Amino acid sequence: MKIGLVGLGKMGLNLAQNMMDHGTEVVGFDLNKDFVSAAAGFGAEAATSLDDLLSKLPSPKVVWLMLPAGKPTESTIATLTDVLDAGDYIVDGGNSFWKNSVEDAKKAEAKNINFFDCGTSGGKSGARHDGNFMIGGTSQESFDAVLKPIFEGIAQTNGYLYTGAAGSGHYLKMVHNGIEYGMMEAIGEGFDVLEHSDFNYDNEAVALLWNSGSVVRSWLMELAQEAFAKDANLDEIKGTMHSSGEGMWTLQEAMDQQVPTPVIALSLMMRYRSMEDDTFTGKVVSALRNGFGGHAVDKA
Amino acid sequence: MKIGLVGLGKMGLNLAQNMMDHGTEVVGFDLNKDFVSAAAGFGAEAATSLDDLLSKLPSPKVVWLMLPAGKPTESTIATLTDVLDAGDYIVDGGNSFWKNSVEDAKKAEAKNINFFDCGTSGGKSGARHDGNFMIGGTSQESFDAVLKPIFEGIAQTNGYLYTGAAGSGHYLKMVHNGIEYGMMEAIGEGFDVLEHSDFNYDNEAVALLWNSGSVVRSWLMELAQEAFAKDANLDEIKGTMHSSGEGMWTLQEAMDQQVPTPVIALSLMMRYRSMEDDTFTGKVVSALRNGFGGHAVDKA
Repeated sequence: MKIGLVGLGKMGLNLAQNMMDHGTEVVGFDLNKDFVSAAAGFGAEAATSLDDLLSKLPSPKVVWLMLPAGKPTESTIATLTDVLDAGDYIVDGGNSFWKNSVEDAKKAEAKNINFFDCGTSGGKSGARHDGNFMIGGTSQESFDAVLKPIFEGIAQTNGYLYTGAAGSGHYLKMVHNGIEYGMMEAIGEGFDVLEHSDFNYDNEAVALLWNSGSVVRSWLMELAQEAFAKDANLDEIKGTMHSSGEGMWTLQEAMDQQVPTPVIALSLMMRYRSMEDDTFTGKVVSALRNGFGGHAVDKA
Repeated sequence: MKIGLVGLGKMGLNLAQNMMDHGTEVVGFDLNKDFVSAAAGFGAEAATSLDDLLSKLPSPKVVWLMLPAGKPTESTIATLTDVLDAGDYIVDGGNSFWKNSVEDAKKAEAKNINFFDCGTSGGKSGARHDGNFMIGGTSQESFDAVLKPIFEGIAQTNGYLYTGAAGSGHYLKMVHNGIEYGMMEAIGEGFDVLEHSDFNYDNEAVALLWNSGSVVRSWLMELAQEAFAKDANLDEIKGTMHSSGEGMWTLQEAMDQQVPTPVIALSLMMRYRSMEDDTFTGKVVSALRNGFGGHAVDKA
Protein backbone atom coordinates (compact mmCIF):
# COMPACT_ATOMS: atom_id res chain seq x y z
CA MET A 1 0.00 0.00 0.00
CA LYS A 2 1.27 3.43 -0.99
CA ILE A 3 -0.59 6.58 -0.05
CA GLY A 4 -0.16 10.31 -0.51
CA LEU A 5 0.07 12.45 2.61
CA VAL A 6 -0.56 16.18 2.23
CA GLY A 7 0.48 18.27 5.22
CA LEU A 8 3.70 17.33 6.98
CA GLY A 9 3.55 19.52 10.08
CA LYS A 10 3.93 18.05 13.57
CA MET A 11 0.95 15.72 13.28
CA GLY A 12 1.49 14.86 9.60
CA LEU A 13 5.18 14.07 9.94
CA ASN A 14 4.59 11.85 12.97
CA LEU A 15 1.75 10.09 11.19
CA ALA A 16 3.95 9.54 8.11
CA GLN A 17 6.61 7.88 10.27
CA ASN A 18 3.96 5.78 12.02
CA MET A 19 2.60 4.62 8.64
CA MET A 20 6.05 3.79 7.28
CA ASP A 21 6.83 1.81 10.45
CA HIS A 22 3.81 -0.35 9.66
CA GLY A 23 4.26 -1.13 5.99
CA THR A 24 2.50 1.78 4.31
CA GLU A 25 4.64 3.66 1.79
CA VAL A 26 4.15 7.42 1.95
CA VAL A 27 4.47 10.05 -0.76
CA GLY A 28 4.62 13.36 1.09
CA PHE A 29 3.82 16.91 0.06
CA ASP A 30 3.70 20.17 1.96
CA LEU A 31 3.85 23.80 0.83
CA ASN A 32 6.80 24.10 3.22
CA LYS A 33 9.73 22.42 1.45
CA ASP A 34 11.61 21.94 4.73
CA PHE A 35 8.77 19.74 5.96
CA VAL A 36 8.98 17.66 2.77
CA SER A 37 12.74 17.26 3.25
CA ALA A 38 12.19 16.20 6.86
CA ALA A 39 9.70 13.54 5.75
CA ALA A 40 12.08 12.37 3.01
CA GLY A 41 14.76 12.06 5.68
CA PHE A 42 12.55 9.50 7.41
CA GLY A 43 12.01 7.55 4.19
CA ALA A 44 8.99 9.20 2.56
CA GLU A 45 8.96 9.81 -1.18
CA ALA A 46 9.10 13.56 -1.73
CA ALA A 47 6.56 15.28 -3.98
CA THR A 48 7.05 18.80 -5.33
CA SER A 49 3.36 19.56 -5.83
CA LEU A 50 -0.07 18.02 -5.38
CA ASP A 51 0.01 16.97 -9.07
CA ASP A 52 3.42 15.39 -8.58
CA LEU A 53 2.12 13.53 -5.54
CA LEU A 54 -0.85 12.18 -7.50
CA SER A 55 1.40 11.07 -10.36
CA LYS A 56 3.39 8.94 -7.91
CA LEU A 57 0.36 7.00 -6.59
CA PRO A 58 -1.04 3.71 -7.89
CA SER A 59 -4.82 3.37 -8.40
CA PRO A 60 -6.99 3.50 -6.47
CA LYS A 61 -5.20 6.60 -5.22
CA VAL A 62 -5.43 7.35 -1.49
CA VAL A 63 -4.75 10.97 -0.52
CA TRP A 64 -4.65 11.67 3.20
CA LEU A 65 -4.79 15.28 4.40
CA MET A 66 -3.23 16.48 7.65
CA LEU A 67 -3.83 20.19 7.07
CA PRO A 68 -5.14 23.01 9.25
CA ALA A 69 -8.96 22.95 9.34
CA GLY A 70 -10.80 25.47 7.20
CA LYS A 71 -9.46 26.98 4.01
CA PRO A 72 -6.25 24.90 3.56
CA THR A 73 -8.21 21.66 3.98
CA GLU A 74 -11.31 22.73 2.07
CA SER A 75 -9.46 24.07 -0.98
CA THR A 76 -7.32 20.94 -1.20
CA ILE A 77 -10.38 18.68 -0.96
CA ALA A 78 -12.06 20.74 -3.70
CA THR A 79 -9.03 20.31 -5.96
CA LEU A 80 -8.81 16.59 -5.25
CA THR A 81 -12.52 16.15 -5.94
CA ASP A 82 -11.89 17.75 -9.33
CA VAL A 83 -8.88 15.69 -10.32
CA LEU A 84 -9.35 12.28 -8.68
CA ASP A 85 -11.15 9.40 -10.40
CA ALA A 86 -14.01 7.18 -9.34
CA GLY A 87 -12.79 4.64 -6.79
CA ASP A 88 -10.04 6.88 -5.40
CA TYR A 89 -9.95 7.87 -1.71
CA ILE A 90 -9.76 11.16 0.16
CA VAL A 91 -9.08 10.96 3.90
CA ASP A 92 -9.38 14.23 5.84
CA GLY A 93 -7.36 13.55 8.98
CA GLY A 94 -7.44 17.11 10.31
CA ASN A 95 -9.79 18.79 12.75
CA SER A 96 -12.39 19.86 10.19
CA PHE A 97 -15.84 20.98 11.22
CA TRP A 98 -18.06 17.92 10.73
CA LYS A 99 -20.64 19.77 8.63
CA ASN A 100 -17.88 20.61 6.13
CA SER A 101 -17.06 16.90 5.97
CA VAL A 102 -20.71 16.08 5.23
CA GLU A 103 -20.65 18.56 2.31
CA ASP A 104 -17.20 17.50 1.11
CA ALA A 105 -18.34 13.86 1.07
CA LYS A 106 -21.46 14.68 -0.96
CA LYS A 107 -19.37 16.32 -3.67
CA ALA A 108 -16.75 13.57 -3.71
CA GLU A 109 -19.31 10.77 -3.63
CA ALA A 110 -21.20 12.39 -6.55
CA LYS A 111 -18.09 11.46 -8.55
CA ASN A 112 -17.85 8.05 -6.86
CA ILE A 113 -14.75 9.15 -5.01
CA ASN A 114 -14.60 7.61 -1.52
CA PHE A 115 -14.47 10.24 1.22
CA PHE A 116 -13.51 9.62 4.84
CA ASP A 117 -13.32 12.12 7.69
CA CYS A 118 -10.90 10.98 10.35
CA GLY A 119 -10.62 12.57 13.77
CA THR A 120 -7.15 11.97 15.17
CA SER A 121 -6.62 11.93 18.94
CA GLY A 122 -3.75 11.09 21.25
CA GLY A 123 -1.70 14.19 20.53
CA LYS A 124 1.64 14.22 18.76
CA SER A 125 2.78 11.06 20.53
CA GLY A 126 -0.38 9.28 19.37
CA ALA A 127 0.21 10.31 15.76
CA ARG A 128 3.69 8.80 16.03
CA HIS A 129 2.79 5.58 17.88
CA ASP A 130 -0.45 3.82 18.74
CA GLY A 131 -2.78 6.58 17.58
CA ASN A 132 -6.51 6.98 18.08
CA PHE A 133 -8.80 7.49 15.09
CA MET A 134 -12.55 8.15 14.69
CA ILE A 135 -13.49 7.61 11.07
CA GLY A 136 -16.73 8.38 9.24
CA GLY A 137 -17.16 8.05 5.49
CA THR A 138 -18.56 6.54 2.37
CA SER A 139 -19.12 2.96 3.51
CA GLN A 140 -17.88 0.19 5.77
CA GLU A 141 -17.06 -1.83 2.63
CA SER A 142 -14.80 0.79 1.04
CA PHE A 143 -13.25 1.42 4.47
CA ASP A 144 -12.48 -2.26 5.01
CA ALA A 145 -11.18 -2.75 1.46
CA VAL A 146 -8.45 -0.12 1.52
CA LEU A 147 -8.12 1.89 4.73
CA LYS A 148 -8.58 -0.71 7.46
CA PRO A 149 -5.11 -2.28 7.06
CA ILE A 150 -3.50 1.15 7.35
CA PHE A 151 -5.38 1.97 10.59
CA GLU A 152 -4.68 -1.52 11.92
CA GLY A 153 -1.00 -0.62 11.68
CA ILE A 154 -0.98 2.93 13.03
CA ALA A 155 -3.61 2.72 15.77
CA GLN A 156 -3.41 1.38 19.29
CA THR A 157 -5.29 -1.90 19.77
CA ASN A 158 -9.00 -0.97 19.52
CA GLY A 159 -7.80 2.54 18.68
CA TYR A 160 -9.76 3.06 15.47
CA LEU A 161 -13.46 2.85 14.69
CA TYR A 162 -15.50 3.29 11.54
CA THR A 163 -18.38 5.32 12.95
CA GLY A 164 -20.79 5.48 10.01
CA ALA A 165 -21.78 8.13 7.50
CA ALA A 166 -19.39 10.90 6.46
CA GLY A 167 -19.14 13.57 9.13
CA SER A 168 -19.54 11.10 12.00
CA GLY A 169 -15.79 10.80 12.50
CA HIS A 170 -15.15 14.49 12.92
CA TYR A 171 -18.37 14.83 14.92
CA LEU A 172 -17.14 12.21 17.37
CA LYS A 173 -13.73 13.89 17.58
CA MET A 174 -15.50 17.20 18.24
CA VAL A 175 -17.45 15.72 21.15
CA HIS A 176 -14.28 14.01 22.41
CA ASN A 177 -12.68 17.44 22.54
CA GLY A 178 -15.72 18.89 24.31
CA ILE A 179 -15.33 16.23 27.00
CA GLU A 180 -11.61 16.99 27.08
CA TYR A 181 -12.33 20.68 27.74
CA GLY A 182 -14.53 19.77 30.69
CA MET A 183 -12.10 17.25 32.15
CA MET A 184 -9.19 19.69 31.82
CA GLU A 185 -11.09 22.57 33.42
CA ALA A 186 -12.17 20.28 36.30
CA ILE A 187 -8.56 19.22 36.89
CA GLY A 188 -7.42 22.85 36.66
CA GLU A 189 -10.05 24.05 39.12
CA GLY A 190 -9.17 21.32 41.60
CA PHE A 191 -5.49 22.25 41.63
CA ASP A 192 -6.51 25.92 41.86
CA VAL A 193 -8.41 25.15 45.08
CA LEU A 194 -5.37 23.27 46.42
CA GLU A 195 -3.13 26.21 45.49
CA HIS A 196 -5.37 28.56 47.54
CA SER A 197 -5.83 26.21 50.48
CA ASP A 198 -4.34 26.70 53.93
CA PHE A 199 -2.46 23.43 53.51
CA ASN A 200 0.74 23.08 51.56
CA TYR A 201 0.49 20.49 48.82
CA ASP A 202 3.19 19.28 46.45
CA ASN A 203 1.33 19.37 43.11
CA GLU A 204 3.52 16.78 41.46
CA ALA A 205 3.22 14.40 44.42
CA VAL A 206 -0.56 14.87 44.41
CA ALA A 207 -0.83 14.18 40.67
CA LEU A 208 1.36 11.09 41.02
CA LEU A 209 -0.79 9.92 43.93
CA TRP A 210 -4.00 10.52 41.99
CA ASN A 211 -2.61 8.57 39.04
CA SER A 212 -1.88 5.62 41.32
CA GLY A 213 -5.25 4.02 41.87
CA SER A 214 -7.60 6.97 42.45
CA VAL A 215 -10.91 7.51 40.68
CA VAL A 216 -9.53 10.49 38.69
CA ARG A 217 -6.58 8.65 37.19
CA SER A 218 -6.36 9.55 33.53
CA TRP A 219 -3.93 10.49 30.79
CA LEU A 220 -4.70 14.17 31.42
CA MET A 221 -3.70 13.74 35.08
CA GLU A 222 -0.48 12.08 33.87
CA LEU A 223 0.21 15.12 31.70
CA ALA A 224 -0.46 17.33 34.76
CA GLN A 225 2.07 15.25 36.69
CA GLU A 226 4.65 15.78 33.94
CA ALA A 227 3.97 19.52 33.87
CA PHE A 228 4.35 19.84 37.68
CA ALA A 229 7.54 17.76 37.53
CA LYS A 230 9.05 20.40 35.24
CA ASP A 231 7.64 23.46 37.02
CA ALA A 232 6.25 22.71 40.50
CA ASN A 233 3.76 25.59 40.61
CA LEU A 234 3.70 26.41 36.88
CA ASP A 235 5.35 29.74 37.61
CA GLU A 236 6.83 29.84 34.13
CA ILE A 237 3.60 29.78 32.14
CA LYS A 238 0.60 32.10 31.93
CA GLY A 239 -2.92 30.79 32.40
CA THR A 240 -4.25 31.93 29.04
CA MET A 241 -6.17 28.99 27.60
CA HIS A 242 -6.23 28.98 23.81
CA SER A 243 -8.74 26.96 21.86
CA SER A 244 -9.05 25.90 18.25
CA GLY A 245 -12.78 25.57 17.71
CA GLU A 246 -13.81 22.07 18.68
CA GLY A 247 -15.13 23.03 22.12
CA MET A 248 -17.12 25.85 20.55
CA TRP A 249 -18.53 23.50 17.90
CA THR A 250 -19.53 21.00 20.59
CA LEU A 251 -21.43 23.73 22.40
CA GLN A 252 -23.06 24.97 19.20
CA GLU A 253 -24.18 21.43 18.38
CA ALA A 254 -25.46 20.94 21.93
CA MET A 255 -27.50 24.14 21.54
CA ASP A 256 -28.78 23.02 18.10
CA GLN A 257 -29.94 19.77 19.68
CA GLN A 258 -31.05 21.55 22.88
CA VAL A 259 -28.85 19.38 25.09
CA PRO A 260 -27.90 21.06 28.40
CA THR A 261 -24.10 20.93 28.64
CA PRO A 262 -23.18 23.51 31.28
CA VAL A 263 -19.77 22.04 32.07
CA ILE A 264 -18.62 22.04 28.44
CA ALA A 265 -20.08 25.56 28.05
CA LEU A 266 -18.35 26.98 31.11
CA SER A 267 -15.07 25.27 30.19
CA LEU A 268 -15.17 27.11 26.88
CA MET A 269 -16.18 30.42 28.46
CA MET A 270 -13.41 30.20 31.05
CA ARG A 271 -11.00 29.80 28.14
CA TYR A 272 -12.36 32.94 26.52
CA ARG A 273 -12.19 34.74 29.86
CA SER A 274 -8.55 33.74 30.22
CA MET A 275 -7.73 35.48 26.94
CA GLU A 276 -8.82 38.87 28.31
CA ASP A 277 -6.92 40.85 30.92
CA ASP A 278 -10.12 42.70 31.79
CA THR A 279 -13.74 42.37 30.71
CA PHE A 280 -16.38 44.85 29.67
CA THR A 281 -18.79 42.81 31.81
CA GLY A 282 -16.62 43.73 34.76
CA LYS A 283 -16.68 47.41 33.90
CA VAL A 284 -20.48 47.37 33.55
CA VAL A 285 -21.02 45.50 36.83
CA SER A 286 -18.60 47.82 38.68
CA ALA A 287 -20.36 50.88 37.26
CA LEU A 288 -23.75 49.51 38.34
CA ARG A 289 -22.54 48.68 41.88
CA ASN A 290 -21.22 52.22 42.08
CA GLY A 291 -24.51 53.52 40.70
CA PHE A 292 -26.87 51.93 43.21
CA GLY A 293 -24.68 51.51 46.23
CA GLY A 294 -21.82 53.95 45.85
CA HIS A 295 -19.41 51.01 45.95
CA ALA A 296 -15.87 51.96 44.97
CA VAL A 297 -14.68 51.21 41.45
CA ASP A 298 -11.10 50.37 40.49
CA LYS A 299 -9.68 52.96 38.08
CA ALA A 300 -8.47 51.72 34.70
CA MET B 1 1.08 -5.34 63.40
CA LYS B 2 -2.48 -5.72 64.70
CA ILE B 3 -5.03 -2.96 64.32
CA GLY B 4 -8.66 -2.43 65.22
CA LEU B 5 -11.07 -1.69 62.37
CA VAL B 6 -14.40 -0.12 63.27
CA GLY B 7 -16.98 -0.17 60.48
CA LEU B 8 -17.16 -3.30 58.33
CA GLY B 9 -19.48 -2.17 55.54
CA LYS B 10 -18.50 -2.51 51.87
CA MET B 11 -15.41 -0.34 52.16
CA GLY B 12 -14.39 -1.53 55.63
CA LEU B 13 -14.73 -5.23 54.85
CA ASN B 14 -12.73 -4.88 51.64
CA LEU B 15 -10.08 -2.88 53.44
CA ALA B 16 -9.89 -5.50 56.20
CA GLN B 17 -9.27 -8.23 53.62
CA ASN B 18 -6.68 -6.06 51.88
CA MET B 19 -4.86 -5.49 55.19
CA MET B 20 -4.92 -9.18 56.13
CA ASP B 21 -3.55 -10.08 52.69
CA HIS B 22 -0.56 -7.87 53.46
CA GLY B 23 0.40 -8.97 56.94
CA THR B 24 -1.71 -6.70 59.12
CA GLU B 25 -3.89 -8.53 61.65
CA VAL B 26 -7.35 -7.03 62.01
CA VAL B 27 -9.70 -6.95 64.99
CA GLY B 28 -13.07 -5.98 63.56
CA PHE B 29 -16.13 -4.37 65.10
CA ASP B 30 -19.39 -3.14 63.64
CA LEU B 31 -22.80 -2.45 65.20
CA ASN B 32 -24.13 -4.89 62.60
CA LYS B 33 -23.20 -8.37 63.86
CA ASP B 34 -23.57 -9.87 60.39
CA PHE B 35 -20.79 -7.61 59.16
CA VAL B 36 -18.56 -8.78 62.03
CA SER B 37 -19.30 -12.40 61.16
CA ALA B 38 -18.46 -11.71 57.51
CA ALA B 39 -15.10 -10.20 58.50
CA ALA B 40 -14.42 -13.14 60.85
CA GLY B 41 -15.13 -15.45 57.91
CA PHE B 42 -12.22 -13.81 56.10
CA GLY B 43 -9.91 -14.22 59.09
CA ALA B 44 -10.48 -11.10 61.18
CA GLU B 45 -10.70 -11.36 64.96
CA ALA B 46 -14.29 -10.53 65.95
CA ALA B 47 -14.99 -7.94 68.63
CA THR B 48 -18.34 -7.61 70.36
CA SER B 49 -17.98 -3.95 71.29
CA LEU B 50 -15.58 -1.04 70.98
CA ASP B 51 -14.27 -1.85 74.49
CA ASP B 52 -13.77 -5.47 73.48
CA LEU B 53 -11.91 -4.35 70.35
CA LEU B 54 -9.60 -2.14 72.41
CA SER B 55 -8.93 -4.94 74.88
CA LYS B 56 -7.67 -7.11 72.02
CA LEU B 57 -5.10 -4.59 70.76
CA PRO B 58 -1.43 -4.29 71.77
CA SER B 59 0.01 -0.83 72.56
CA PRO B 60 0.32 1.52 70.84
CA LYS B 61 -3.26 0.79 69.86
CA VAL B 62 -4.25 1.68 66.28
CA VAL B 63 -7.98 2.14 65.73
CA TRP B 64 -9.03 2.68 62.13
CA LEU B 65 -12.54 3.95 61.41
CA MET B 66 -14.42 3.19 58.19
CA LEU B 67 -17.73 4.69 59.28
CA PRO B 68 -20.25 6.98 57.58
CA ALA B 69 -19.13 10.60 57.84
CA GLY B 70 -20.81 12.78 60.44
CA LYS B 71 -22.34 11.53 63.66
CA PRO B 72 -21.21 7.85 63.54
CA THR B 73 -17.61 8.89 62.91
CA GLU B 74 -17.58 11.90 65.23
CA SER B 75 -19.11 10.12 68.21
CA THR B 76 -16.70 7.20 67.86
CA ILE B 77 -13.70 9.53 67.63
CA ALA B 78 -14.94 11.37 70.75
CA THR B 79 -15.17 8.08 72.65
CA LEU B 80 -11.75 6.95 71.46
CA THR B 81 -10.21 10.28 72.43
CA ASP B 82 -11.60 9.70 75.92
CA VAL B 83 -10.40 6.15 76.37
CA LEU B 84 -7.16 5.86 74.38
CA ASP B 85 -3.76 6.58 75.87
CA ALA B 86 -0.91 8.85 74.81
CA GLY B 87 0.91 7.31 71.86
CA ASP B 88 -2.14 5.48 70.53
CA TYR B 89 -3.45 6.11 67.01
CA ILE B 90 -6.81 7.06 65.56
CA VAL B 91 -7.16 6.80 61.76
CA ASP B 92 -10.36 8.22 60.28
CA GLY B 93 -10.56 6.49 56.90
CA GLY B 94 -14.06 7.70 56.05
CA ASN B 95 -15.23 10.70 54.05
CA SER B 96 -15.27 13.16 56.96
CA PHE B 97 -15.44 16.89 56.39
CA TRP B 98 -11.85 18.11 56.71
CA LYS B 99 -12.71 20.81 59.27
CA ASN B 100 -14.06 18.10 61.55
CA SER B 101 -10.73 16.31 61.18
CA VAL B 102 -8.84 19.46 62.16
CA GLU B 103 -10.97 19.71 65.33
CA ASP B 104 -10.82 15.98 66.06
CA ALA B 105 -7.03 16.08 65.75
CA LYS B 106 -6.74 19.02 68.15
CA LYS B 107 -8.64 17.15 70.84
CA ALA B 108 -6.75 13.88 70.30
CA GLU B 109 -3.36 15.58 70.12
CA ALA B 110 -4.11 17.46 73.37
CA LYS B 111 -3.93 14.00 74.96
CA ASN B 112 -0.89 13.05 72.84
CA ILE B 113 -3.00 10.62 70.84
CA ASN B 114 -1.89 10.50 67.21
CA PHE B 115 -4.68 11.43 64.82
CA PHE B 116 -4.70 10.79 61.06
CA ASP B 117 -7.40 11.65 58.55
CA CYS B 118 -7.24 9.35 55.56
CA GLY B 119 -9.16 9.94 52.34
CA THR B 120 -9.71 6.63 50.57
CA SER B 121 -10.16 6.57 46.79
CA GLY B 122 -10.38 3.89 44.15
CA GLY B 123 -13.87 2.69 45.04
CA LYS B 124 -14.70 -0.71 46.49
CA SER B 125 -12.15 -2.43 44.25
CA GLY B 126 -9.45 -0.04 45.46
CA ALA B 127 -10.27 -0.77 49.08
CA ARG B 128 -9.85 -4.48 48.32
CA HIS B 129 -6.70 -4.25 46.17
CA ASP B 130 -4.15 -1.53 45.42
CA GLY B 131 -6.02 1.30 47.11
CA ASN B 132 -5.40 5.02 47.03
CA PHE B 133 -4.94 6.98 50.25
CA MET B 134 -4.47 10.68 51.08
CA ILE B 135 -3.35 11.00 54.68
CA GLY B 136 -3.00 14.06 56.87
CA GLY B 137 -2.23 13.94 60.55
CA THR B 138 -0.09 14.47 63.59
CA SER B 139 3.37 14.16 62.07
CA GLN B 140 5.45 12.50 59.38
CA GLU B 141 7.43 10.78 62.16
CA SER B 142 4.43 9.16 63.84
CA PHE B 143 3.09 8.26 60.40
CA ASP B 144 6.31 6.58 59.35
CA ALA B 145 6.75 4.76 62.66
CA VAL B 146 3.46 2.88 62.69
CA LEU B 147 1.15 3.54 59.73
CA LYS B 148 3.49 3.60 56.74
CA PRO B 149 4.06 -0.19 56.63
CA ILE B 150 0.30 -0.76 56.61
CA PHE B 151 -0.25 1.64 53.70
CA GLU B 152 2.76 0.19 51.88
CA GLY B 153 0.88 -3.11 51.86
CA ILE B 154 -2.64 -2.00 50.98
CA ALA B 155 -1.95 0.81 48.50
CA GLN B 156 -1.04 0.70 44.84
CA THR B 157 2.59 1.66 44.13
CA ASN B 158 2.77 5.42 44.84
CA GLY B 159 -0.85 5.12 45.99
CA TYR B 160 -0.49 6.73 49.42
CA LEU B 161 0.84 10.10 50.51
CA TYR B 162 1.29 11.79 53.86
CA THR B 163 0.04 15.26 52.97
CA GLY B 164 0.85 17.26 56.11
CA ALA B 165 -1.18 18.61 59.01
CA ALA B 166 -4.40 16.95 60.18
CA GLY B 167 -7.26 17.77 57.84
CA SER B 168 -5.06 17.84 54.74
CA GLY B 169 -5.88 14.24 53.85
CA HIS B 170 -9.63 14.68 53.85
CA TYR B 171 -9.22 18.09 52.20
CA LEU B 172 -7.29 16.50 49.35
CA LYS B 173 -9.88 13.73 49.04
CA MET B 174 -12.61 16.41 48.96
CA VAL B 175 -10.90 18.23 46.07
CA HIS B 176 -10.28 14.89 44.33
CA ASN B 177 -14.03 14.30 44.47
CA GLY B 178 -14.71 17.82 43.19
CA ILE B 179 -12.53 17.05 40.17
CA GLU B 180 -14.31 13.73 39.84
CA TYR B 181 -17.70 15.50 39.72
CA GLY B 182 -16.47 17.72 36.87
CA MET B 183 -14.89 14.88 34.91
CA MET B 184 -18.01 12.73 35.27
CA GLU B 185 -20.37 15.53 34.22
CA ALA B 186 -18.14 16.29 31.18
CA ILE B 187 -18.22 12.63 30.15
CA GLY B 188 -21.98 12.50 30.71
CA GLU B 189 -22.60 15.64 28.66
CA GLY B 190 -20.47 14.36 25.79
CA PHE B 191 -22.41 11.11 25.54
CA ASP B 192 -25.65 13.11 25.86
CA VAL B 193 -24.67 15.11 22.75
CA LEU B 194 -23.87 11.84 20.91
CA GLU B 195 -27.23 10.40 21.99
CA HIS B 196 -29.02 13.43 20.48
CA SER B 197 -26.93 13.61 17.31
CA ASP B 198 -28.14 12.73 13.81
CA PHE B 199 -25.50 10.00 13.65
CA ASN B 200 -25.89 6.61 15.24
CA TYR B 201 -23.10 5.81 17.67
CA ASP B 202 -22.51 2.61 19.61
CA ASN B 203 -21.75 4.00 23.08
CA GLU B 204 -19.76 0.98 24.20
CA ALA B 205 -17.66 1.00 21.02
CA VAL B 206 -17.04 4.73 21.43
CA ALA B 207 -15.97 4.33 25.07
CA LEU B 208 -13.66 1.44 24.13
CA LEU B 209 -12.20 3.55 21.31
CA TRP B 210 -11.68 6.53 23.61
CA ASN B 211 -9.95 4.30 26.15
CA SER B 212 -7.55 3.08 23.46
CA GLY B 213 -5.11 5.94 23.05
CA SER B 214 -7.33 9.05 23.05
CA VAL B 215 -6.75 12.14 25.17
CA VAL B 216 -9.79 11.40 27.38
CA ARG B 217 -8.72 7.88 28.36
CA SER B 218 -9.33 7.46 32.06
CA TRP B 219 -10.65 5.08 34.67
CA LEU B 220 -13.99 6.89 34.56
CA MET B 221 -14.21 6.25 30.80
CA GLU B 222 -13.42 2.59 31.49
CA LEU B 223 -16.31 2.50 33.95
CA ALA B 224 -18.52 4.10 31.27
CA GLN B 225 -17.45 1.36 28.86
CA GLU B 226 -18.42 -1.30 31.41
CA ALA B 227 -21.79 0.37 31.99
CA PHE B 228 -22.55 0.56 28.25
CA ALA B 229 -21.47 -3.07 27.85
CA LYS B 230 -24.20 -4.07 30.30
CA ASP B 231 -26.89 -1.67 29.03
CA ALA B 232 -26.09 -0.11 25.65
CA ASN B 233 -28.14 3.06 26.12
CA LEU B 234 -28.56 2.88 29.90
CA ASP B 235 -32.29 2.32 29.44
CA GLU B 236 -32.47 0.50 32.75
CA ILE B 237 -31.31 3.33 35.00
CA LYS B 238 -32.65 6.78 35.77
CA GLY B 239 -30.45 9.85 35.47
CA THR B 240 -30.85 11.02 39.06
CA MET B 241 -27.36 11.86 40.30
CA HIS B 242 -26.99 11.45 44.04
CA SER B 243 -24.16 13.06 45.95
CA SER B 244 -22.73 12.61 49.40
CA GLY B 245 -21.30 16.00 50.25
CA GLU B 246 -17.75 16.19 48.96
CA GLY B 247 -18.62 18.12 45.80
CA MET B 248 -20.61 20.59 47.89
CA TRP B 249 -17.71 20.97 50.35
CA THR B 250 -15.29 21.58 47.48
CA LEU B 251 -17.53 24.36 46.19
CA GLN B 252 -17.96 25.86 49.66
CA GLU B 253 -14.18 25.86 50.13
CA ALA B 254 -13.67 27.39 46.68
CA MET B 255 -16.10 30.15 47.64
CA ASP B 256 -14.37 30.65 51.02
CA GLN B 257 -11.07 31.07 49.16
CA GLN B 258 -12.75 33.02 46.31
CA VAL B 259 -11.51 30.59 43.66
CA PRO B 260 -13.70 30.54 40.53
CA THR B 261 -14.68 26.90 39.94
CA PRO B 262 -17.63 27.05 37.55
CA VAL B 263 -17.28 23.49 36.29
CA ILE B 264 -17.26 21.97 39.76
CA ALA B 265 -20.16 24.27 40.71
CA LEU B 266 -22.29 23.37 37.70
CA SER B 267 -21.51 19.66 38.11
CA LEU B 268 -22.93 19.86 41.61
CA MET B 269 -25.95 21.92 40.55
CA MET B 270 -26.77 19.54 37.70
CA ARG B 271 -26.80 16.77 40.31
CA TYR B 272 -29.27 18.72 42.41
CA ARG B 273 -31.35 19.49 39.31
CA SER B 274 -31.46 15.78 38.50
CA MET B 275 -33.06 15.06 41.88
CA GLU B 276 -36.10 17.19 41.02
CA ASP B 277 -38.79 16.25 38.51
CA ASP B 278 -39.71 19.91 38.16
CA THR B 279 -38.28 23.14 39.52
CA PHE B 280 -39.78 26.21 41.10
CA THR B 281 -37.36 28.22 38.95
CA GLY B 282 -39.12 26.76 35.93
CA LYS B 283 -42.54 27.71 37.24
CA VAL B 284 -41.38 31.29 37.92
CA VAL B 285 -39.74 31.69 34.49
CA SER B 286 -42.81 30.25 32.72
CA ALA B 287 -45.10 32.58 34.66
CA LEU B 288 -42.93 35.58 33.74
CA ARG B 289 -42.81 34.63 30.02
CA ASN B 290 -46.57 34.37 30.13
CA GLY B 291 -46.77 37.69 31.93
CA PHE B 292 -44.80 39.80 29.48
CA GLY B 293 -45.32 37.95 26.23
CA GLY B 294 -48.44 35.86 26.64
CA HIS B 295 -46.33 32.75 26.00
CA ALA B 296 -48.15 29.52 26.77
CA VAL B 297 -47.45 27.76 30.06
CA ASP B 298 -47.60 23.98 30.59
CA LYS B 299 -50.23 23.04 33.18
CA ALA B 300 -49.08 21.12 36.24
